[in-house]
Amino acid sequence: MPGIASEQARRFDPVRYLPILSWARTYDRDTATSDLVAAIIVTIMLIPQSLAYALLAGLPAEVGLYASILPLVVYAIFGTSRSLAVGPVAVVSLMTAAAIGKASGINPITAALTLALLSGLLLLLLGIFRLGFLANFLSHPVISGFITASGIVIAASQLKHILGIYASGDNLVEVLHGLWENAGDTNLVTLAIGVASAGFLFWVRRGLKALLVARGLRPRTADLAAKAGPVIAVAATMLLAWLFDLEEHGVILVGAVPKGLPPLTGPSISPDVWISLIGSAALISVIGFVESVSVAQTLAARKRQRIDPDQELVALGASNVAASFTGGYPVTGGFARSVVNFDAGAATPAAGAFTAVGIAVATLTLTPLLAYLPQATLAATIIVAVLSLVDFSVLRKTWVYSKADFSAVAITIAGTLFVGVEAGVALGVGLSILIHLYRTSRPHMAIVGQVAGTEHFRNVRRHKVVTDDRILSLRVDESLYFANARYLEDRLYDLVAARPSLEHVILVCPAVNAIDMSALESLEAINEKLAGLGVKLHLSEVKGPVMDRLKRADFLDHLSGGIFLTQYKAVQELGGKLKPAA
Amino acid sequence: MPGIASEQARRFDPVRYLPILSWARTYDRDTATSDLVAAIIVTIMLIPQSLAYALLAGLPAEVGLYASILPLVVYAIFGTSRSLAVGPVAVVSLMTAAAIGKASGINPITAALTLALLSGLLLLLLGIFRLGFLANFLSHPVISGFITASGIVIAASQLKHILGIYASGDNLVEVLHGLWENAGDTNLVTLAIGVASAGFLFWVRRGLKALLVARGLRPRTADLAAKAGPVIAVAATMLLAWLFDLEEHGVILVGAVPKGLPPLTGPSISPDVWISLIGSAALISVIGFVESVSVAQTLAARKRQRIDPDQELVALGASNVAASFTGGYPVTGGFARSVVNFDAGAATPAAGAFTAVGIAVATLTLTPLLAYLPQATLAATIIVAVLSLVDFSVLRKTWVYSKADFSAVAITIAGTLFVGVEAGVALGVGLSILIHLYRTSRPHMAIVGQVAGTEHFRNVRRHKVVTDDRILSLRVDESLYFANARYLEDRLYDLVAARPSLEHVILVCPAVNAIDMSALESLEAINEKLAGLGVKLHLSEVKGPVMDRLKRADFLDHLSGGIFLTQYKAVQELGGKLKPAA
Repeated sequence: MPGIASEQARRFDPVRYLPILSWARTYDRDTATSDLVAAIIVTIMLIPQSLAYALLAGLPAEVGLYASILPLVVYAIFGTSRSLAVGPVAVVSLMTAAAIGKASGINPITAALTLALLSGLLLLLLGIFRLGFLANFLSHPVISGFITASGIVIAASQLKHILGIYASGDNLVEVLHGLWENAGDTNLVTLAIGVASAGFLFWVRRGLKALLVARGLRPRTADLAAKAGPVIAVAATMLLAWLFDLEEHGVILVGAVPKGLPPLTGPSISPDVWISLIGSAALISVIGFVESVSVAQTLAARKRQRIDPDQELVALGASNVAASFTGGYPVTGGFARSVVNFDAGAATPAAGAFTAVGIAVATLTLTPLLAYLPQATLAATIIVAVLSLVDFSVLRKTWVYSKADFSAVAITIAGTLFVGVEAGVALGVGLSILIHLYRTSRPHMAIVGQVAGTEHFRNVRRHKVVTDDRILSLRVDESLYFANARYLEDRLYDLVAARPSLEHVILVCPAVNAIDMSALESLEAINEKLAGLGVKLHLSEVKGPVMDRLKRADFLDHLSGGIFLTQYKAVQELGGKLKPAA
Repeated sequence: MPGIASEQARRFDPVRYLPILSWARTYDRDTATSDLVAAIIVTIMLIPQSLAYALLAGLPAEVGLYASILPLVVYAIFGTSRSLAVGPVAVVSLMTAAAIGKASGINPITAALTLALLSGLLLLLLGIFRLGFLANFLSHPVISGFITASGIVIAASQLKHILGIYASGDNLVEVLHGLWENAGDTNLVTLAIGVASAGFLFWVRRGLKALLVARGLRPRTADLAAKAGPVIAVAATMLLAWLFDLEEHGVILVGAVPKGLPPLTGPSISPDVWISLIGSAALISVIGFVESVSVAQTLAARKRQRIDPDQELVALGASNVAASFTGGYPVTGGFARSVVNFDAGAATPAAGAFTAVGIAVATLTLTPLLAYLPQATLAATIIVAVLSLVDFSVLRKTWVYSKADFSAVAITIAGTLFVGVEAGVALGVGLSILIHLYRTSRPHMAIVGQVAGTEHFRNVRRHKVVTDDRILSLRVDESLYFANARYLEDRLYDLVAARPSLEHVILVCPAVNAIDMSALESLEAINEKLAGLGVKLHLSEVKGPVMDRLKRADFLDHLSGGIFLTQYKAVQELGGKLKPAA
């Protein structure tokens, strides 16, 4: 992109690669207070979430806590968003579970560490080579569809914990089938805890805020207080489990969790393991990045701040590498917690570092209590969280706006629900690209004629224009490249075959921004075949950069006709005797 | 593509689906004579080729003959090209060999029949749903690179027959390694036959024609006579093998071939077999179709005839299904033999049907002789044929014209040589698509200003224009879609952040041919964020179809600014006070 790109400074700038330098030097007590308050609130929210998402990923609960310590510190150093809260998130946890499930024969914890390492390295590579644009291939509708469908699969997969039964599966059909098969084993005490927790959490989301506001709290404070709901549910059910020894009644608890800071862990470095996980790691990193960067951009824009997507890749990559060496699993910036962080007043990434300290303290002190935490409570927090992501309105919106976009969403949702998360994303992205290529493979072309008495040429089908039977002027409204090169040949031969008195074909090119090698060869073929029929090929209104490129090939030497700066000049010089188009 | 598409008749037309109807009714004795002469020459050429390509595919020699009977008749009924000669071809045979090699555990003949069935069904489906445009994703440079690299792999793979040793492999490295390992087992008699045959065939290609012309033959007749070279080599070495009982001297012969017409065969209908072969079948059908349709188009254009690519899909699909039920393997239109057919005067597809009769007669009468045919002779015919396909000039051409195209060719060649044929094609197509998406993901955008005293607006960096600090006019030279939607947001926020006195942003859209759902959501986000900063968003020169689509969404209701027919009107109504751009 010549022109505007050069507005960006190209010189080396340490602040760009270590954004911490941009805010650490002016860090003062006021900012620290804001960050600290935000950190406390986010910590309270993150503790149950971390535990729950680790279970969703099929990992021991403490892995979620480990993933919420060092990665946050690393993000604070490299990240460009001042509000993003990094850690385990629902969709990435589901994808991790799917990847671990596929990689049979590998210890789940090792697989999770290796996934974190691989997706970290991939993100770093993309960031270093500034390839963040690849994430753009996930179109907005595909992302919406994927998140909605994942939310449903996640919620369904958690029902087994609410019922206290065994069930597994990578997609909705398998999960529901497992639930149906084992529904007879339902533990009623577990069910009571799960339903009560879920009911409480739904009420906290919907009703508590209004109540607190009515009691005199400011709406924003009420909103933040409501985020503590999961902690209350966790504490209450933990207490119940301890008081009434619920494990005896068949309630499955999280169980003993090792006390202490994250261990130093080593992901696998076996090439076989890497090969079997690299595909999943790639999908996890792209989905994670897209979720994270969308949140970061939305929040930054509210304060007229900027984030640098390529540096975000580096920061998330480094966070994931950190996770892989400290007992964690893939992490990314989460939507809900980042909004809380923002609303609670986080002013710099230091808030994330403080949150890490909070989680570390919790890991050191609270882990014995987790032995009494019912899994059903965590399942309830997950269900309530992900159901808020489910939003089918994208189907209606795209149906109205564009059937092509609709079909991409529909296949993403169907693939995710009925095959699996990875299939859903792959199908959605693949179909989006196919649809785009299909669109541009049949570019709009118009035969143009002269608006009598002017130098303007317009579509003969839409305007009253004059033409000459010996001259065919065809305007192509698209760059010419491999996907539409043959189409141009086809259309042109059809048009020429139907016009026996033709002597000249003029391609009118003001909208042709590029001509690739395939299209060049098609133009050469057209030129040669037309010459064989006694028809000359001319070009008019070719853009500067396209002309420069054409000069590198020998096409212009063989061109039977000429190159004209304007279409008017072309018709004049070819001696066009114009009459109104039929 | 509105406008021109409607020139095509949309009503049902039996001739379109059964092109035989277009020529069979007026078929007369003269045409029949032309077709018959062409058929005899093509039959003579096709017999050794069919045997050789079957061996290349790793199949018994007679399979090549079987694949050259019914498929040709079927193509004559459904095909739209009057000169295309269908049958086994080199590249598809190599791909068949690779697919059979991968599908371990499946009988090679069954695998070949199933590949023919699957690629036939795929081609039929593509034809029926008019999806021939998918073949356009193979760019010209990728095809050239693939054919060159395949030619090298094929030639190398045949060296083992010339040496009379064992060697196998899917790519050049494996093949050369196998040859190196077993070179000590070389059979000198075999080597003599192979080298003599190859030498003779090269001479026939290069020197014979000149000789015949010097003796008074017309150049075209001399050309055709030279095509009989392989038959002479086959007959001569067969005779030698019989006279001197060369099998006793370790020369490997084709051996006993069952006499008679093709058997009725059944491809596998096992889902497991289908799943393991479907990917290869898809590549075979696309590559085969592209090769065939390119030849057919080139030849049709010489006589100002037309072919219908979608109907060609149907015809080739039906031919392959026919091959799968009559003991054959995947077939397509071949380059060399179609040119021969054309030059020999084939006037209608009936020439193909006559060729089929010729091959059937050969199958009935000549098969006993094949027992004496040295494999080295067939290998020599393959080597000489495929080396003529090798052409590295595409590397130089693309290097000069476009580094992006060069990299796609280079990866195709490298992938084919060092990994395998399927990897080569997949890498080439994948990279071409990525490069295209990358190009359009960073569209050219220009800040425009008014050419003083006119209604024209031009790039501020290239022209002397006047601007207003309160108004930013940005022209986008590309359709807006998911791959560039976020880029537009990024650039715009950068530009706005650098202009504190800004009040209006005008997107100038004459080159925007489409706005998909992702881009629409980006425009909504831009509109909202700019509104938050007190900046209004306007659009100018929006194309009709784009405007129609925007009206389906509620974007226009929320747009903070207006929609203007021309950029001049926009600046005027916004009260632009213009001064020359800095």
